[in-house]
Amino acid sequence: MRLNFLAFSSLAIAVFLVTATLHPRSMRADEATVSYPDGYRAWTFLHGSVVPSGFGGFSKLPCVKPCTNGIFYFYANEPAMQGLRTGAYADGAVIAEEMLELKLGEKGNGGEGHRVLTAVMVKDSRRYAATGGWGFGNFDEGSKANTLDSKAQQACFQCHIVRKDQGYVFSQYAER
Amino acid sequence: MRLNFLAFSSLAIAVFLVTATLHPRSMRADEATVSYPDGYRAWTFLHGSVVPSGFGGFSKLPCVKPCTNGIFYFYANEPAMQGLRTGAYADGAVIAEEMLELKLGEKGNGGEGHRVLTAVMVKDSRRYAATGGWGFGNFDEGSKANTLDSKAQQACFQCHIVRKDQGYVFSQYAER
Repeated sequence: MRLNFLAFSSLAIAVFLVTATLHPRSMRADEATVSYPDGYRAWTFLHGSVVPSGFGGFSKLPCVKPCTNGIFYFYANEPAMQGLRTGAYADGAVIAEEMLELKLGEKGNGGEGHRVLTAVMVKDSRRYAATGGWGFGNFDEGSKANTLDSKAQQACFQCHIVRKDQGYVFSQYAER
Repeated sequence: MRLNFLAFSSLAIAVFLVTATLHPRSMRADEATVSYPDGYRAWTFLHGSVVPSGFGGFSKLPCVKPCTNGIFYFYANEPAMQGLRTGAYADGAVIAEEMLELKLGEKGNGGEGHRVLTAVMVKDSRRYAATGGWGFGNFDEGSKANTLDSKAQQACFQCHIVRKDQGYVFSQYAER
């Protein structure tokens, strides 16, 4: 179960990175129907995943093996938490992820750097019917304008399709 | 400011690791006055820090440079959040940290493994007057028994003293 989770997380991040790379910053936002998740830092923290240097935002940084340069943190609002528990996501559910720089020291220790981006998936069955009821957004550091147009959001969805039986959500929540 | 935060985080973790190493699992708990932070996963997530292989719990794992084998997540309950905003911590404030295995793949990607430990600092001005009003606890995976006796808690406090002006707390909260 844990291995499946890690595999799914890696797959989701890999597709996200590919999508982000394919759609440069200059792309026009898609009418801002997916909005910035204000207050997500106070939502429930789900899990983290470290990010390799293959991500475009880190291309100018030195690669010190194993070349980890960032970290994703995932958060869920209360409707999304209910969905994570039941498998059914009501309209209004939002899962947010933020990617920060991860600075590793020579001895393998390390901590957070600045925020590189925030991304979301927002449940609205009617508005986002073409993508499983989820709208997808990406917000570069310092911006609340969604950089993903409908084509990019469709690319997000094409990855999430493999999780149809889990409401198209990769994240899981462990009580511990 | 960010650099100070990272430096303090590294210092706090370093002292925690030394303390944990000096006090093996067989040490008698200190009358369990510091209790396990039930429900901390639903508290506000503060930040993360990756952990080097120098930590005893990882001594049997292979060290692949830069030898990062774990990750700390820090959480604050609502009284602690008020303290983080104001600098004054009321009795009942609790900051919890958990350390999970961090599994890095060959390409620098990675995700969480199992939980290795949970640790806390609990504010009770009267009960823990000898350590700045904070009681310290460490709970190994699968246990709710504090492994830190009064001597070990004093060692925790000796590190936290440098943060007297911040209520003895290393953690900070970034809204982002």
